[in-house]
Amino acid sequence: MNSYELNKISKGELKKIFSRPSVANDDVIEIVRPIVNDVKNKGLKAALSYAKKFDSFSGESIFVSKKEFNSAEKKLDKKIKTALINASKNIEKFHSKQRPKSYEVETIKGIKCRREFRAIENVGLYIPGGTAVLPSTMLMLSIPAKIAGCKRVTAITPSNDSIHPAVLFAAKINNVDEVLKIGGAQGIALLAYGDPEFNKVDKIFGPGNKYVTAAKTLVSIDPEGCPIDMPAGPSELLIIADENARADFIAADILSQAEHGIDSQIILITTSSYLAAPVKSEITKQLEQLDRKNFALGALENSSIIIVEDIDEAIKLSNTYAPEHLILNINNAEKYINQIQNAGSVFLGKYSAESIGDYASGTNHSLPTYGYARSISGVTVEAFMKSVSFQKVSQGGLNRIAQTVIDLAETEKLDAHANAVKIRIKK
Amino acid sequence: MNSYELNKISKGELKKIFSRPSVANDDVIEIVRPIVNDVKNKGLKAALSYAKKFDSFSGESIFVSKKEFNSAEKKLDKKIKTALINASKNIEKFHSKQRPKSYEVETIKGIKCRREFRAIENVGLYIPGGTAVLPSTMLMLSIPAKIAGCKRVTAITPSNDSIHPAVLFAAKINNVDEVLKIGGAQGIALLAYGDPEFNKVDKIFGPGNKYVTAAKTLVSIDPEGCPIDMPAGPSELLIIADENARADFIAADILSQAEHGIDSQIILITTSSYLAAPVKSEITKQLEQLDRKNFALGALENSSIIIVEDIDEAIKLSNTYAPEHLILNINNAEKYINQIQNAGSVFLGKYSAESIGDYASGTNHSLPTYGYARSISGVTVEAFMKSVSFQKVSQGGLNRIAQTVIDLAETEKLDAHANAVKIRIKK
Repeated sequence: MNSYELNKISKGELKKIFSRPSVANDDVIEIVRPIVNDVKNKGLKAALSYAKKFDSFSGESIFVSKKEFNSAEKKLDKKIKTALINASKNIEKFHSKQRPKSYEVETIKGIKCRREFRAIENVGLYIPGGTAVLPSTMLMLSIPAKIAGCKRVTAITPSNDSIHPAVLFAAKINNVDEVLKIGGAQGIALLAYGDPEFNKVDKIFGPGNKYVTAAKTLVSIDPEGCPIDMPAGPSELLIIADENARADFIAADILSQAEHGIDSQIILITTSSYLAAPVKSEITKQLEQLDRKNFALGALENSSIIIVEDIDEAIKLSNTYAPEHLILNINNAEKYINQIQNAGSVFLGKYSAESIGDYASGTNHSLPTYGYARSISGVTVEAFMKSVSFQKVSQGGLNRIAQTVIDLAETEKLDAHANAVKIRIKK
Repeated sequence: MNSYELNKISKGELKKIFSRPSVANDDVIEIVRPIVNDVKNKGLKAALSYAKKFDSFSGESIFVSKKEFNSAEKKLDKKIKTALINASKNIEKFHSKQRPKSYEVETIKGIKCRREFRAIENVGLYIPGGTAVLPSTMLMLSIPAKIAGCKRVTAITPSNDSIHPAVLFAAKINNVDEVLKIGGAQGIALLAYGDPEFNKVDKIFGPGNKYVTAAKTLVSIDPEGCPIDMPAGPSELLIIADENARADFIAADILSQAEHGIDSQIILITTSSYLAAPVKSEITKQLEQLDRKNFALGALENSSIIIVEDIDEAIKLSNTYAPEHLILNINNAEKYINQIQNAGSVFLGKYSAESIGDYASGTNHSLPTYGYARSISGVTVEAFMKSVSFQKVSQGGLNRIAQTVIDLAETEKLDAHANAVKIRIKK
């Protein structure tokens, strides 16, 4: 991690420090396109053959049976079950406040407009697998789906035969209707296009590797496919620390981000010019104990320390970067909430480690990366719903609004639009 | 418009009746890709050269001046001004209830989670131009942006030199910060990528022709670009009518949809086997008075009448089709609100013509087409905002949640995630 003083670097240098590890999209899209098209045309059969090829799938069926759910529950360590239940409770408590409310407004006398919310009926959740085991992602996606009231929640995860019991238990306690042992581009395509034996879903959620992301992109721009939650990029963290921050806490947070993968990025912005050295030596020390040390070392290559004058300047920089995760390891962190414009999830004060939000504080960990926090929210209950508007016009309301509609329709030269009103007031 | 009785057609035939006029995407994407890339690389200069080429732009600057705004206001017929102001009031009244509220929850003692909403800072609105003049689209996009509190609202519209005064007046009364005379793929690319003289926006909204739609798709999947409101397809209407519905009203609604373009689609579902004939003869009669008769004739080719047993069956069909616009020209239409799952905007009862919602009832007319109503909302205030989550963990909260986080992190084999908590409870 190189250190820079903000007032000694140029705009161009700052831009370079803030540039994310590139997400090479186009090539990967061309790799997955034939797979996606094949599953689109041939359905389950094609999906299964790719599962055999890429994930060495050797089971009889990709549909997880009730028996498998039950045996997962039996097998799973009680301590993990408790942790999953505790985390679920917090996530549910936070997300249940997100269920949006319908309302009705009489915009003018005789014209009642109404907004109603409806759950998306069929949703697909992608839970990454392979070397990773991610029951937490199952929680973060299935709980808002459940609160929204989705009719059918389907989760998929790549697997050669059996799925880690923690993942199945997380699905079971949160009403996931079916789990399929399939992942990658073939899994995404199966969700998006369906098959006579498997109904397509209406929206796909969840993180994944570059092949999954590319497949999600393809199905999201195909009118025969379906929308997705958000574009995905590597995970990232920005920490703002003042002179009171402990170097060991900061180092631990940096490493918890860095262990995700070599394309992760961490930016530490600090008002203290004395913090960089102890943070770096703490990183070296803590790194030694990590299984995923090599991932972390790679990520640190993309990461930087910036020294600024004051916290206001730090927050301004953070808003420019628009981080997925933002830690404010400073005194009176709450004071700055209103200044934070662009961020996915924010951790206030020295005890608020990012990993608490990753698992159990209650907030969602599916968050916008790559600067998308400027315009996109993390996964919410509303993302599993859509709104429908209604209007009821009485005869009086019609008379009151007719001239406005006719004048605007005629300005736009849409005669039939005007006529639909004229014919109703004529008689 | 061919008529069918539901109980006499097969599933396959129904699917064919419900299939939308195709949106040929891939070819168009290859046409616009070089334009988008050129503007991405060369900015305003390239955009301007395409504006000259495609829209015969001959003005000095694409930025609308204050003088132009003022002269538009002077020139515009008072009646149209009043109509725009009246429509704005209703739209504002309906949309202002959509401003989402922040909240805080203490998920467990010592862990406070919070959700805050922030306006997207820079938004771009696309207002189609060319032969069409669409001040109503300016209203439908700028009003929610204003309510959301976006810092900078930029509207673009193709123009050879001057913009219709109604469009500029609609922008002015709704606080649009700048209007640019540029459209097409080059306009979308300029919004998405910016230029040293024009800051890029964070999200693009608005309808457009197939080139605009393709350009929106391209910038939305480019991490250097920006997200968009929704995928766009041709406009569509589904009408459910009972035996009391007037054929002339229905014909007028059908034509108000059909005049949009030859790729529009209308489905009339009725419980009356006597309605088709008078509706068709009314269509023939009303068609004669329409300037856009040829567009309407084309759209009617894609359109059908389906006769069903009862209203419940009609609504079930409608939910399958997921129409952009749905008219319930039936008795006690409100009774069926809860049954409507998938639709963009719904018009209840015989006086609720679609064109009232298109212009002035208060609801938004930017709506999901092509079946996207299954999973996507029309344009709302929230679409101009995003949420940010916050968490504050006290020392006590940390102690209470630590074991849950550690157990889950260790299940996922993310040591550094566990360590970020361990190091904080150690001392």
